[in-house]
Amino acid sequence: MYFRPNIESLSPYVPGIQPQEPGFIKLNTNENPYPPSPRVEALLRSVSASDLRLYPDPSAERLRATIASLHGLAPGNVIAGNGSDEILSMIFRAAAGKGDRVAVCYPSYTLFKVLAAMQEAEVSEYDLREDFSLPEEFIAAPATLKLVASPNSPTGTQYSLETIDRILEATEGIVVVDEAYADFADGDATPLLAKYPNLIVTRTVSKSYSLAGLRIGYGLASEEIVSGLIKVKDSYNVDRLSGAIAEAAISDREYFRETVAKVREQRERLGRGLGDLGFAVFPSGANFLLARPPGGKAREIYEQLLQRKILVRYFDLRRLSDCLRISVGTEEEMDVLLKALRDILGPGAA
Amino acid sequence: MYFRPNIESLSPYVPGIQPQEPGFIKLNTNENPYPPSPRVEALLRSVSASDLRLYPDPSAERLRATIASLHGLAPGNVIAGNGSDEILSMIFRAAAGKGDRVAVCYPSYTLFKVLAAMQEAEVSEYDLREDFSLPEEFIAAPATLKLVASPNSPTGTQYSLETIDRILEATEGIVVVDEAYADFADGDATPLLAKYPNLIVTRTVSKSYSLAGLRIGYGLASEEIVSGLIKVKDSYNVDRLSGAIAEAAISDREYFRETVAKVREQRERLGRGLGDLGFAVFPSGANFLLARPPGGKAREIYEQLLQRKILVRYFDLRRLSDCLRISVGTEEEMDVLLKALRDILGPGAA
Repeated sequence: MYFRPNIESLSPYVPGIQPQEPGFIKLNTNENPYPPSPRVEALLRSVSASDLRLYPDPSAERLRATIASLHGLAPGNVIAGNGSDEILSMIFRAAAGKGDRVAVCYPSYTLFKVLAAMQEAEVSEYDLREDFSLPEEFIAAPATLKLVASPNSPTGTQYSLETIDRILEATEGIVVVDEAYADFADGDATPLLAKYPNLIVTRTVSKSYSLAGLRIGYGLASEEIVSGLIKVKDSYNVDRLSGAIAEAAISDREYFRETVAKVREQRERLGRGLGDLGFAVFPSGANFLLARPPGGKAREIYEQLLQRKILVRYFDLRRLSDCLRISVGTEEEMDVLLKALRDILGPGAA
Repeated sequence: MYFRPNIESLSPYVPGIQPQEPGFIKLNTNENPYPPSPRVEALLRSVSASDLRLYPDPSAERLRATIASLHGLAPGNVIAGNGSDEILSMIFRAAAGKGDRVAVCYPSYTLFKVLAAMQEAEVSEYDLREDFSLPEEFIAAPATLKLVASPNSPTGTQYSLETIDRILEATEGIVVVDEAYADFADGDATPLLAKYPNLIVTRTVSKSYSLAGLRIGYGLASEEIVSGLIKVKDSYNVDRLSGAIAEAAISDREYFRETVAKVREQRERLGRGLGDLGFAVFPSGANFLLARPPGGKAREIYEQLLQRKILVRYFDLRRLSDCLRISVGTEEEMDVLLKALRDILGPGAA
């Protein structure tokens, strides 16, 4: 018993399977099926090992300026981190102490509750409504820290600007809108940053920029919030290579738009295909779909897909155990998946 | 006031200056003056941008196996992180709660106290003795978490295996030996890992592997400790590129030995040169020297070196404000530094 009691009893966040061997169609952790911008390849060809000898810029000025310019903000409104998970961890460490009230929804990103437990904060968890919309009780709940993912994972649900505005109107503490998937949606919460100094929007280059392997995420907020978060940041949290690669990828707007458009096109197609097979498909603004297979045999289908080396995500959790979360892949991957589902479901399907 | 009171009042750790423009002789943050292993360059030439599309292995198995084999341990005894600062941060989050006793020395790595303040832990700080050796009160102090850097920064002092053993013998809580600089010393504390399940040794590839820009550090400990730390770890804290580069660098033992030998040779030479100029030089097992200039004008010398674009470290702190901490550079850099110091100190010196 070397650790704090809340750590000894902690159930850590469990990420999806990351098979190290090749040959899988990987639709379980919402990676982008397309490679990153060609500018990333060019950068990798030109970077010199000797550049790695020196520490990175502790404040990641260049990367933050690139991000700020993308969002029409100042670098003082941006904090960069080792994935948006690190940004979330910093927010919890800075804002949520023992006994502080943290408000989250269910089902949503389960990391929120794990981070709250590490801080010994008190979690109020609000069930999303039947259609996964936000309950009024959550919107109005008093909280030191309130978190909502939009589009939400694993449901895909996007919440409107009006809804986010109402949350901010009703909440005195910090409100985090985790927008890891917002680039695949229509609209986002960043227009509210000018209005609410207690809003933090978190983003990542993992999904829309095809750089999950890189670990770069960022937070957008008022200068007051960003200065507070910088205090709890590790000195050199953004390494030289990752920072430079993220800059290169973010700066390639044309490639970004093309890739996002392709993912959205395949999301439409996957939704139609699943619908044709009798799945109930929830509306999604993300690069994945939550869908309830006919007959409720989600786990069996998950396992049969796995046998065919097709990985999707199955959550053995309340309200999710009859569903599958399927990342949007390439056209070819979607064809293989839909064919496999057709085989598994048998001649009765579609 | 969006943050916890202990964060609002926190004085964050201040890293040394990292000039983004070239032209400096940089002897202020203990980077290695030699480039990383040629295997790093080879890896950078062969890596493909499309590899970055997928998340890294959450448990960094390959890197941990490489590190474990280096130290004759099992992968279950290794935790890898985004620099050893992240390892330290994880240790504090897992082990030090509000009011818990954290024992540190002064002067030592100031980050320890900052991390303790974030956790609202109670810090007991023990002054090192006149020769920077460890006081008996620290060795025997009861603590939930006790930290010692060996070789210590900014003093360079290496503590003997016997002394570390006595600390562990006397301490029920976790003992961290921060060995960021141990590769430049004779011996280290890792032989004690087999004896004490409460020992954590932290290491980094920043210094001895010339990869400060990469941010890879690691902790060595019992399986029980490592499993606890993994609970508070961000899921994907080691990115794909950095993990692979660290593996490549660590595996090149011959280059490592040559580079460390060169740094040690220049450390000797710098020590003699400073001694000839009238500096009092403290014994160092690290890749830097703490030295007290004649006449006590440390700050003035720091500033005059800065004007010549030579960066060394000056700490405006008790027991340190009459000293300079100088990183060991190449033979040429040491020549330029010693010549500059001779000019600054005037004809009276040496």
